[in-house]
Amino acid sequence: MVGGNSNRVDVTNHDVDHVKVSIPPLSNHLQSIEIHKVCLPPNKTTFQTLKHRLSEIFFPDDPLHKFKNQTFYKKLVLGLEYFFPIFLWAPHYSFKLFRSDVISGLTIASLAIPQGISYAKLANLPPIIGLYSSFVPPLLYALLGSSRHLAVGPVSIASLVMGSMLEESISPTENPEIYLSLAFTATFFAGVFQASLGLLRLGFIIDFLSKATLIGFTAGAAIIVSLQQLKGLLGIVHFTTKMQFVPVISSVFHEKNEWSWHTIVMGLSFLVFLLTARQISMRKPKLFWISAAAPLTCVLISTLIIFIFKAQIKGISTIGHLPRGVNPPSANMLYFHAPYLGLALKTGIITGILSLTEGIAVGRTFASLKNYQVDGNKEMVSIGVMNMAGSCTSCYVTTGSFSRSAVNNSAGAQSAVSNIVLAATVLVTLLFLMPLFYYTPNVILGAIIITAVIGLIDYQAAVKLWRVDKLDFIACLCAFFGVLFISVQIGLAIAVGVSVFKILLNVTRPNTVILGNIPGTHIYQNLRRYGEASRIPFFLILGIESPIYFANSTYLQERLLRWVREEEEWIQTNKGSPLKCVILDLTSVSAIDTSGLETIVELRRTLEKRSLQLVLVNPVGGVMEKLCRSKVLESFGTSGLYLTVGEAIADLSATYKAQLYLP
Amino acid sequence: MVGGNSNRVDVTNHDVDHVKVSIPPLSNHLQSIEIHKVCLPPNKTTFQTLKHRLSEIFFPDDPLHKFKNQTFYKKLVLGLEYFFPIFLWAPHYSFKLFRSDVISGLTIASLAIPQGISYAKLANLPPIIGLYSSFVPPLLYALLGSSRHLAVGPVSIASLVMGSMLEESISPTENPEIYLSLAFTATFFAGVFQASLGLLRLGFIIDFLSKATLIGFTAGAAIIVSLQQLKGLLGIVHFTTKMQFVPVISSVFHEKNEWSWHTIVMGLSFLVFLLTARQISMRKPKLFWISAAAPLTCVLISTLIIFIFKAQIKGISTIGHLPRGVNPPSANMLYFHAPYLGLALKTGIITGILSLTEGIAVGRTFASLKNYQVDGNKEMVSIGVMNMAGSCTSCYVTTGSFSRSAVNNSAGAQSAVSNIVLAATVLVTLLFLMPLFYYTPNVILGAIIITAVIGLIDYQAAVKLWRVDKLDFIACLCAFFGVLFISVQIGLAIAVGVSVFKILLNVTRPNTVILGNIPGTHIYQNLRRYGEASRIPFFLILGIESPIYFANSTYLQERLLRWVREEEEWIQTNKGSPLKCVILDLTSVSAIDTSGLETIVELRRTLEKRSLQLVLVNPVGGVMEKLCRSKVLESFGTSGLYLTVGEAIADLSATYKAQLYLP
Repeated sequence: MVGGNSNRVDVTNHDVDHVKVSIPPLSNHLQSIEIHKVCLPPNKTTFQTLKHRLSEIFFPDDPLHKFKNQTFYKKLVLGLEYFFPIFLWAPHYSFKLFRSDVISGLTIASLAIPQGISYAKLANLPPIIGLYSSFVPPLLYALLGSSRHLAVGPVSIASLVMGSMLEESISPTENPEIYLSLAFTATFFAGVFQASLGLLRLGFIIDFLSKATLIGFTAGAAIIVSLQQLKGLLGIVHFTTKMQFVPVISSVFHEKNEWSWHTIVMGLSFLVFLLTARQISMRKPKLFWISAAAPLTCVLISTLIIFIFKAQIKGISTIGHLPRGVNPPSANMLYFHAPYLGLALKTGIITGILSLTEGIAVGRTFASLKNYQVDGNKEMVSIGVMNMAGSCTSCYVTTGSFSRSAVNNSAGAQSAVSNIVLAATVLVTLLFLMPLFYYTPNVILGAIIITAVIGLIDYQAAVKLWRVDKLDFIACLCAFFGVLFISVQIGLAIAVGVSVFKILLNVTRPNTVILGNIPGTHIYQNLRRYGEASRIPFFLILGIESPIYFANSTYLQERLLRWVREEEEWIQTNKGSPLKCVILDLTSVSAIDTSGLETIVELRRTLEKRSLQLVLVNPVGGVMEKLCRSKVLESFGTSGLYLTVGEAIADLSATYKAQLYLP
Repeated sequence: MVGGNSNRVDVTNHDVDHVKVSIPPLSNHLQSIEIHKVCLPPNKTTFQTLKHRLSEIFFPDDPLHKFKNQTFYKKLVLGLEYFFPIFLWAPHYSFKLFRSDVISGLTIASLAIPQGISYAKLANLPPIIGLYSSFVPPLLYALLGSSRHLAVGPVSIASLVMGSMLEESISPTENPEIYLSLAFTATFFAGVFQASLGLLRLGFIIDFLSKATLIGFTAGAAIIVSLQQLKGLLGIVHFTTKMQFVPVISSVFHEKNEWSWHTIVMGLSFLVFLLTARQISMRKPKLFWISAAAPLTCVLISTLIIFIFKAQIKGISTIGHLPRGVNPPSANMLYFHAPYLGLALKTGIITGILSLTEGIAVGRTFASLKNYQVDGNKEMVSIGVMNMAGSCTSCYVTTGSFSRSAVNNSAGAQSAVSNIVLAATVLVTLLFLMPLFYYTPNVILGAIIITAVIGLIDYQAAVKLWRVDKLDFIACLCAFFGVLFISVQIGLAIAVGVSVFKILLNVTRPNTVILGNIPGTHIYQNLRRYGEASRIPFFLILGIESPIYFANSTYLQERLLRWVREEEEWIQTNKGSPLKCVILDLTSVSAIDTSGLETIVELRRTLEKRSLQLVLVNPVGGVMEKLCRSKVLESFGTSGLYLTVGEAIADLSATYKAQLYLP
C-alpha cells in the first residue's frame, strides 16, 4: 500500500480564507523558483515489474483483499461467501424481503414464459427448450450469482445469433436432431468460454465491445429480429432462410400470395396492444406491471380466441403439442467431433461473449443503481457454470436479460430469491400447464418478440453519440449497417474493428499544442485555448497529448519540426527575439517505446544542427525510466531535463539573455 | 498560424540571476493563489473540426506551405521542383560533385551487379531479371526521388518474400513463363499500391511496422534466406521447396549423399573471404571499398577458376548463358485475370509494403545524417512509379537498398547522379559483358547473399530492446520466430498484431498514481516517485496517465475506487483527518470517449454516496469539450472543476476545515 512512505503536511492549522490575493509580478516568480530534480521511479527488478504489471492486468480490483489478516475460520467463511454469495445474504433474509421477492418473481415469470417460448423459436429451437432454459439456469444463478436484480433466462440477441449462425450450416427443419445437439454443444462451449474468461481474469475482453458499438449492434439486431417476425405476423410459409435486410424484405413482398389476413389482423391487434402497454409503463414507471403482464395476457386471450373459434379461423398456425415434465438430461447429446465441431465452437464463443456482455452490463447497471458492487470476473464464472450445467439439462444459452431484470427491479426484487420463484413458476408450468399452449398462435410470439426488441433501439443514445463524439457515432453506424446488411458476425467484427481503429487513429495522430504562460502564475497552458496565456521570448513550449509510439513517432517528429518552422517564420515576420530553445512538455505523454525514444534523439540532433536547444519537462515515471535506461538522457547534458516548464525557463533564460547582450 | 493571438511577455529586462532563492511556507502559497477558470477550446463547427482533423491526418507536414503567397511563375517552378527534384539540384551541379558521384556510382555498380543476379535467384527468377532491375529503376529514381544517397535496385527481403509467396502456388521450374508473368504483375501491383499510399497520403500505414518488429522480422528473414543458400553452397539438387527452418534443415541432412565437396570447399572459401572483407570494413569505415569490391572480385576470381579448371572440376553448377541486350518490354506479360490475380495482388501488396518500409527508412536515415528532409509520401509515389514502370520493362520489385546505400554514402555520393552512373555501368554490362557470366558458379551467389543478409541480423538492437522495453522485445521475438518457423506472411502479421496489441494493452491497463505536494511549491507529483512529496489532509489526488476509453473505463473505475478504499483503510489505521475529496488530475488524459464520460459520471455518483466530493483538474482541450457537450460538467456544480490541483485544494480546504470545526 502507499500509506507507508507518506508524511502528511498539516495545512489545517493555516489560514486559507483569503484565497484571491494579488500576485507578485512574473519576474519575482521566476526568481523565487527553486530547481527540482526529476526523479526516477523506485528501482524495480524485471521480476518485480513483471509481477506488478501482471497483477494490474489480472487483479486490478485486488479480489483477495478481504482475506488479508483473517483467521482460518473467517477465511473459510469468506471463501464460502465468495463462491456462493447466497451465504452472504441468506442469514439476513426476512419474511418482508421474501414477500417482495415472491411478487417480483411471479411478475417476471409471467413475462419469462411467453418470452422463453418466443426466443427459442428465434434460435430455431423447439419452444419447450425456451421453458427448460427458464427453469434450471435461474436456480443455479440464485446460488452462484452476486447480482440481486438479474433475471436470468434466454435473451433475444444471443438467441438470434445462435439461430443465424447454426442455420447457415445446417437446416433446423431437415436435421432437427443434429441442430439441437449443436445448440446444446454451442451452449456448452459458451459456458466454458465464459467461465474461463472469468477464471483467467480476462474479463476485460468484453470491454472491447464499446458502448457505442453495442448501441449500433443492438439496434441492427433488433431490426433483423423484428423483420424475421414478419414470417409469423403475415403467415408466410415459404420464407427466406437469410437474415439480412434486403433478402428478407424482398421475400416478404415476393410471397404476397401467402399473406394470411386472419393472421395479420390478429398479429397487428396484439402488437398494438403490447406496444400501448409498453408505452403506458414507460410514461408512468409505477404502472410497470401493465407491460410486464401484457405478454401473458396476450397469450391467454389469443389462445382462448383460437380455442373458441378454431372451427371458423383457418390457417393460423399454433404452437401445438408440448411435452409435459421437467428438463430431460442432454449431456449425451453434446457433439464433440467432426464435421460440426468448429461451427459449435465458433457459435459458442460468439453467443458466449454477447450474452456475457449483456449479463455483465445489466448486472453492473442495477448494482450501481442500488449501490452494491458486482465482481465482473466472478459473474463470468457464475454465468459460465450456469451455461455448462444448462447444456447438460436441455437448456440453451442464457444470461441476465435486460428487459426482465428491469421489470424485476421495478417489481421490487430484493435478492436472488426472485429467480427461485421464477424457476418454481416455470416448474409448475412445465408439470401441469403445457396443454394450455396447444392452441397458442405463433403470431402472438412474433408480436411479443417485436415489442421486446423494439425497446432495444436506443436512437436517443445515438443522437447523443453524434453530439459528443463523432467517431463513436461512426462506430455505432458501422455496427448497425454491418448487422443489417451483411451479417451478425461481420457486423460485430466491424464494430470491434472500428473501435480499435479509433484508438489507433488517436495514437497515430495525437494532438500537439503550443503552451504559453498565464501571466503572474506558474501555469503554462495551450495558447489557443487560454487567451490570456502569452509566449516567452527565446522559448517555444510544445505539449504532446499522447504516448509516443512507433505508430506516431514519424508524425510527431514532422509535426514538431513544423511548429518550429512556423515559429521561426513568425519571428522573422514580426522581428521577435530569436528562438533559442524548444521545451517539450512530456506531462501528457503517458508512455514511450523504442521508436519514440529514437524520435527524441533524432529531434534533439535536428534542432541542434539549427542551433536550438531541446529541453524535456516532467516525464511521467515510465517514460523517465525508459529515457534513462536507453541512455537518451545522457546526450541532453545537465540542462536538458526539468520538473516544470517554469523552472526550465527560469534556469535557461538568464543564459540566453547573457548570450544576447554579449559584445 | 498561431502567431496571431499571442502577446509576448518580455522577461528579458528582468533580473533572473538568483535562481535558487528560499521559498515562502506552504500556507502563504495557498493564500496567494488566484482561482482560474478552465477554458473551452475556441468554438468550432463540425465542418471546421472535421477539416482540421483530416488535414492533421493527411497533411501533417503542410506540404504546400512553400507555395503560399508566390507568383504564378514561381509556383510553376516550385511545382516542377516538387515533382522532379532533379530540377532542384541540377542547376547547382558541378564537376566536383560529378567526380564524387562517378566514383560512388562505379562502387555501387560493382556491388549491384553480383547482388542483382543473386537476389533474382532468391526470387526464383532468371538472373538476367536482376540486372534489368538494376538498370531502369535507378534511372527513374534519379529523375523522381528526393533522396541523394539512396542506391536503388532489387533487395533481399522483398526478393525472398516474392519468391516464397509465388512459389507456394506455382512452381518456377515447371511453369517458368507464368511464374515470370506473375512476378511482373506483382511488381506492378506493388507499384500501384505504393504510389496510391503516397497519393492518398496514407504513408503512416508503414509506421505500423514498428522498429522492434522489423528487427525481429529482418533477422528471421535473414536466417531463412541464408538457409536457402545451403542448396547452392552444398550443391544439393533435390532441395525442399519449403522455406521454414525445420523442413530446410531436415532436407539438408536428408540429402547428404548429394553434397558436392568441390562446391562446398569453393563456397566456404569465398564465404570466409567475403565475411573477412566485411569485418575489415566494419572495423575501419575508411576501408569501406574492400567490402564493396569483394563481391565483384569473388565473381571474377571464381569465374576464372571455373573457366580454367572446367575440365577437372565437375558438378559445380554455373549461371550459364545470359541473353545480351537491354530490358525487353514486358507490359504484354502482365496478368490480370483468374486464377492467379489474387495471388499477384497479395504478393504485390506485401512486397510493396516491405520494400517501401526499407526504402523510406533508408532514405530518412541518410537524409537525417546529411541534414536534409525527405518527404515520405512523395518518396512513396516515386518508388511506386518506378515499380510500375519497372514491371513493364522486365524489372521486378526494387527499392532503396540498405547495404548499397550505405556503400554509396561512404563512397561519397553527392546526388542522384550516382544512380545514373550505376545504371550506365549496368547498361555496359548488359550490352557487352554478359558472356563473362557464363562460367560464374552459382555457389558464389549464395556466398554473396549470405554475406549481405547476415549484416541484417542486429542482435545488439535486440539486446537494447530487452533492456529498454520488454514488450518491444517480445514483439521482436514474435516476428523472428514467426518468420523462422511459420511463414514470412504470418510472421509479419504476428509482428503487426503484437505491436497493435501493445498499444491496446497500454490503453487497457493504464497507470494511475497518487499525487502529493512537493513542500513549498505548486508542484504535485507521484508520491512513490518523489520522496519529498506529501499528502494533503482531506484530499486524495489521483492522476490518470492515459486516455479514458471504452477499453479501460471499467478498469479505471474499479482501480480508482480501490485507491479510495485503500486510502480510507489507511486513514482508519493511522487515525488521519477524514477523507473529504477525491481530486482527479486529468492533465495526462489525452482523450475521452462516451464510455469514459459515463465512467466519470458513475464515479461521481458512487463517491457522492460515500459523502466524498469528486473534483476534476485541468482537462486538455478535447476532453474539456466533450465534458461540456455531454453535459457531464453540469452535475459537478461550481466547485467541481479547477485549472490546477493547487487551486482546487486552496479553494476547498477552507470549506472542509470549517465543516470539521463546526459545533
